[in-house]
Amino acid sequence: MTEVSAEDVLFALNNLWVLIAAALVFVMHLGFACIESGLTRAKNTVNILAKNVAIVSIGMLTYAVIGFGLMYPGANEGAFLPFSSLGGLIGLFGVSPPEGGMTSAYADYTYWSDFVFQAMFAATAATIVSGAVAERIKIGSFLVFSTLYVMVIYPIVGFWKWGEGFLDALGFYDFAGSTIVHSVGGWGALAGILVLGPRIGKYVRTADGKRVARPIMGHSMPLAAIGMFLLWFGWFGFNGGSVLSAAPTGGEGALDYGFGGVSLVFMTTMLGAAAGIAGATAASWLQDGKPDLSMMLNGALAGLVAITAGADSFSAGSAILVGLIGGVIVVVSVILLDRGGLDDPVGAVSVHLVCGIWGTLAVGLFSDAATLGAQLSGVLATAALCFPAALALFAGLKATVGIRVSRQEELMGLDIGEHAMEAYSGFQFFTTQ
Amino acid sequence: MTEVSAEDVLFALNNLWVLIAAALVFVMHLGFACIESGLTRAKNTVNILAKNVAIVSIGMLTYAVIGFGLMYPGANEGAFLPFSSLGGLIGLFGVSPPEGGMTSAYADYTYWSDFVFQAMFAATAATIVSGAVAERIKIGSFLVFSTLYVMVIYPIVGFWKWGEGFLDALGFYDFAGSTIVHSVGGWGALAGILVLGPRIGKYVRTADGKRVARPIMGHSMPLAAIGMFLLWFGWFGFNGGSVLSAAPTGGEGALDYGFGGVSLVFMTTMLGAAAGIAGATAASWLQDGKPDLSMMLNGALAGLVAITAGADSFSAGSAILVGLIGGVIVVVSVILLDRGGLDDPVGAVSVHLVCGIWGTLAVGLFSDAATLGAQLSGVLATAALCFPAALALFAGLKATVGIRVSRQEELMGLDIGEHAMEAYSGFQFFTTQ
Amino acid sequence: MTEVSAEDVLFALNNLWVLIAAALVFVMHLGFACIESGLTRAKNTVNILAKNVAIVSIGMLTYAVIGFGLMYPGANEGAFLPFSSLGGLIGLFGVSPPEGGMTSAYADYTYWSDFVFQAMFAATAATIVSGAVAERIKIGSFLVFSTLYVMVIYPIVGFWKWGEGFLDALGFYDFAGSTIVHSVGGWGALAGILVLGPRIGKYVRTADGKRVARPIMGHSMPLAAIGMFLLWFGWFGFNGGSVLSAAPTGGEGALDYGFGGVSLVFMTTMLGAAAGIAGATAASWLQDGKPDLSMMLNGALAGLVAITAGADSFSAGSAILVGLIGGVIVVVSVILLDRGGLDDPVGAVSVHLVCGIWGTLAVGLFSDAATLGAQLSGVLATAALCFPAALALFAGLKATVGIRVSRQEELMGLDIGEHAMEAYSGFQFFTTQ
Repeated sequence: MTEVSAEDVLFALNNLWVLIAAALVFVMHLGFACIESGLTRAKNTVNILAKNVAIVSIGMLTYAVIGFGLMYPGANEGAFLPFSSLGGLIGLFGVSPPEGGMTSAYADYTYWSDFVFQAMFAATAATIVSGAVAERIKIGSFLVFSTLYVMVIYPIVGFWKWGEGFLDALGFYDFAGSTIVHSVGGWGALAGILVLGPRIGKYVRTADGKRVARPIMGHSMPLAAIGMFLLWFGWFGFNGGSVLSAAPTGGEGALDYGFGGVSLVFMTTMLGAAAGIAGATAASWLQDGKPDLSMMLNGALAGLVAITAGADSFSAGSAILVGLIGGVIVVVSVILLDRGGLDDPVGAVSVHLVCGIWGTLAVGLFSDAATLGAQLSGVLATAALCFPAALALFAGLKATVGIRVSRQEELMGLDIGEHAMEAYSGFQFFTTQ
Repeated sequence: MTEVSAEDVLFALNNLWVLIAAALVFVMHLGFACIESGLTRAKNTVNILAKNVAIVSIGMLTYAVIGFGLMYPGANEGAFLPFSSLGGLIGLFGVSPPEGGMTSAYADYTYWSDFVFQAMFAATAATIVSGAVAERIKIGSFLVFSTLYVMVIYPIVGFWKWGEGFLDALGFYDFAGSTIVHSVGGWGALAGILVLGPRIGKYVRTADGKRVARPIMGHSMPLAAIGMFLLWFGWFGFNGGSVLSAAPTGGEGALDYGFGGVSLVFMTTMLGAAAGIAGATAASWLQDGKPDLSMMLNGALAGLVAITAGADSFSAGSAILVGLIGGVIVVVSVILLDRGGLDDPVGAVSVHLVCGIWGTLAVGLFSDAATLGAQLSGVLATAALCFPAALALFAGLKATVGIRVSRQEELMGLDIGEHAMEAYSGFQFFTTQ
Repeated sequence: MTEVSAEDVLFALNNLWVLIAAALVFVMHLGFACIESGLTRAKNTVNILAKNVAIVSIGMLTYAVIGFGLMYPGANEGAFLPFSSLGGLIGLFGVSPPEGGMTSAYADYTYWSDFVFQAMFAATAATIVSGAVAERIKIGSFLVFSTLYVMVIYPIVGFWKWGEGFLDALGFYDFAGSTIVHSVGGWGALAGILVLGPRIGKYVRTADGKRVARPIMGHSMPLAAIGMFLLWFGWFGFNGGSVLSAAPTGGEGALDYGFGGVSLVFMTTMLGAAAGIAGATAASWLQDGKPDLSMMLNGALAGLVAITAGADSFSAGSAILVGLIGGVIVVVSVILLDRGGLDDPVGAVSVHLVCGIWGTLAVGLFSDAATLGAQLSGVLATAALCFPAALALFAGLKATVGIRVSRQEELMGLDIGEHAMEAYSGFQFFTTQ
């Protein structure tokens, strides 16, 4: 073995942590698949699983070809559009690796590790949309939407902040993506719900002609619970890996009112989720007289989404407060959207968009007015790109190939209609509900 | 990058391992949720999942406010009660982190990392109780019990050994918590079973008036198997992280007849579980003429619980022996408790209490008489605090708000009664069994 | 703390990574259990879970006693049989660890860590067989086969390459085991299928006397999807850990046309799987007019198996190509085997054997003719040992204790017949299908 310096070992340690964190973020895709299928009906389960498997593949492959180069163009600091370096990653596609390709692009980890970690994030945005449009969208149209959304929209917003675009120049702070990842997905989810309309049977007319929401129960709460726990587990990589090093105690580069480092990030992530459960449990218990498990699960996710923007800069106490409020917000939001005619089978808009905005603004609320203004700018800029873009994509698909399955297929279930198979062969379950 | 020393990098490495290990321990909570719901009936599944989700939240939040300060008071070496520093962790709750809060409290990792790792352990004790009292306890009463047990009883026992209290001074050895974690949970489980009594239908009278136990089968063996595998996976963090550093080969601080280090701990943990499966498979095959899957799953856990006290000091051969005996013990114990009228739906007392005692004593059996005496003291002291405390808590709840659901609710299932929802909406299953 | 050098810290880092990777490989056993049970019928689920739990135990324990010593004899470079050092690991079985046992056997990690990582691999070969022979094999006979196959056959092939036997001397390259692990399992699977014959009802005669295959659907697609995701997650340890260090960028010891390092290996593993999904989705969509979820899941595994032989030496582009072709191959292979009368319930032969061969040869195809020749030698040598040995074992068991359950038991389900319990107590499902 040649002589090795402490710097070499630190580089290897940081690089390894980014990769392990990437593997943890990968687990979140399984978490999404589980919670989405658990909270919907048995007759649509194959379809939901197929969407989630396909999105992972699409997210990774498009990020390799387009997304990574678009999000991190390298020489466009403060810019609004990163297109100058489109296709910069084509070097990935030689049969032999490019000369010098394994050297470090950053101080802390290799170019390849950076790509792996970022690619794991990319598919998340589309996965969030998947839950909101579940049980009624055509698989082909959804995959076209996802491909375009993940390949173009997500990297542009990502560039604005993490690629050192204009939001970064404005002082907008989003540590691991309450806005950059979760709200991007949330705006797409909201657009999808609006274009698709509610599921058959979600809203019924009462005798006096009033339209009321009817609960459509998920078919497997163990699957949903597994999904929540795996998402939380993966979030230690999502937030912890966003330190982009194994630095225990943070330091330069963090906001001046706080500091990062993996120790603090793990603690705030843990406490934010725990407090989210507490908030949602209390809110649903007060509301219904009983603790609602699906609210408890969404409460954990609400806490996690909310803590993500400032996981490196909140104290333990702030983390608990941010998570607790997130847990209450998600219960209120789910009820209000439901009453408002927006049929979101898994609560994706409430968890990822509403709590993503809450967490992003909380970073400002715990800081000063200038920071709060920058946070608001980031929220609005993201909305201004993502929501119209998603609306246009969904509307375009609706006008051309169609986006909604037939009434008959929706009643029978998308598993038979889109995939010609059942999720639970041999079991009897009701498709009418 | 400023100049970095080998000591700095080692600190970062140790700190990162404690955090990764904490994430693995977190997975154990999902494992507990799966095995407990898998081994019980479909009609009580939402309730079991809700309990497990709530306990994680309660465990983390109370540990932040009370538990951590109680368990590691810092200046009470050899003491019996740690109350002098109660609330020492209140510094966690400033909006800005305390001055110097990120400096290291120990040689090897930050104060925050220590808290995260220890908090993951805290909820375990209550989770163990959850399985034993499943299918008949009121959720509100269970959550009150759990809060008090996790917030006060667990940290006191933890202080006795890991906070350098009187058991540590006595020479009691419990590497990762066969007694400090698993038996603490096990005593609570035993108390809960005694106060609650068996589930309706568990014991029936034969024609000649004899009371006999009837098996009540779990509703999902895949869920139970997932639970076992995830518990084992998490146990690599539970035991491996208890080295509190990434030291490959151990050294100072371990028992003089052995040594620690993560390499040895991973090996003994792996072999203990493997041998536990072998022991339980053989025992159940001999007993029933067929290998019983639920016994095989509990055999793995029995091996893991048993190995935990001495995972840093057993040889590979000893680990196999300790696990193998644990696997046999758990089969015998489950049968005897069942016959004895103690209705433990998941075998929690047999796995965590009986095998926790076995593993703790095994450390002494493989050492000398003095060590065996110290081990026995630890077992007895833990029993002397935990069992009466848990009995008193359960009896107090029974006498006031009640702890058992109504007969009608128990027959219909706690999912409807406590949560007004079903775990498997759309599926048909029998609630009478 | 005594003074520490950068070399010491690097050793601790490498050692820790090998252990974490081993824990990830452990998760693959849960993945196998889930995908195998998900893709088969509810009435055989307990049996499948019991096989998978038992195999993990058998694999680890026999590897401790026999396998490790057989596979890494130390002083038989270039040899054909490693028997000279059989039982070399008996030192593991003293009550105290052997003197010097914790010193490093290699540059990068401890002897114990090496054993733990390798033991996690060992059980894999038998697990692969399990899926192919599912729903009709007697549990006792299967466990006897597995014990012998894991204890003797797998370590011999492993020795040929990784123990520096004759295949290594020939220049055969198999980074993490497309051949050494996956094909070894695949040949056993093929032999088992041939000796056992198809499941009752798999092939039916049409009116004109033609024998046609009938699909037998799996009972839980969520379980199958969980299995795929967990296998992929674990594969980051399987391939990433096979670097046997945390080296970010590779270097000496790799093939001269490429290089390893954990960064590259994570990237190729990720992209190979993503491309496998894409290939299988496209192939099945073209074939059936709809995307088949079970093909999508097997496509991910096909990509992973294929990338494994050269995960440290393919570029990103090559990884995508190798995975994409793997995904197409697995669809074609499943269809052809099905038509050819080989009843493989989970597609184990197509995934592990066919794609294992594809990945092994791909290393040669992306290199030169000499390498391709060496790769072919490795494939043929593995076939020449494993297939006849597995055939002989299965035939021997058939001739003596029998390997197939009775017709009545097969129709009723192996859960009742072999284990006297049901997987889903309380649920109604059809055993006739």
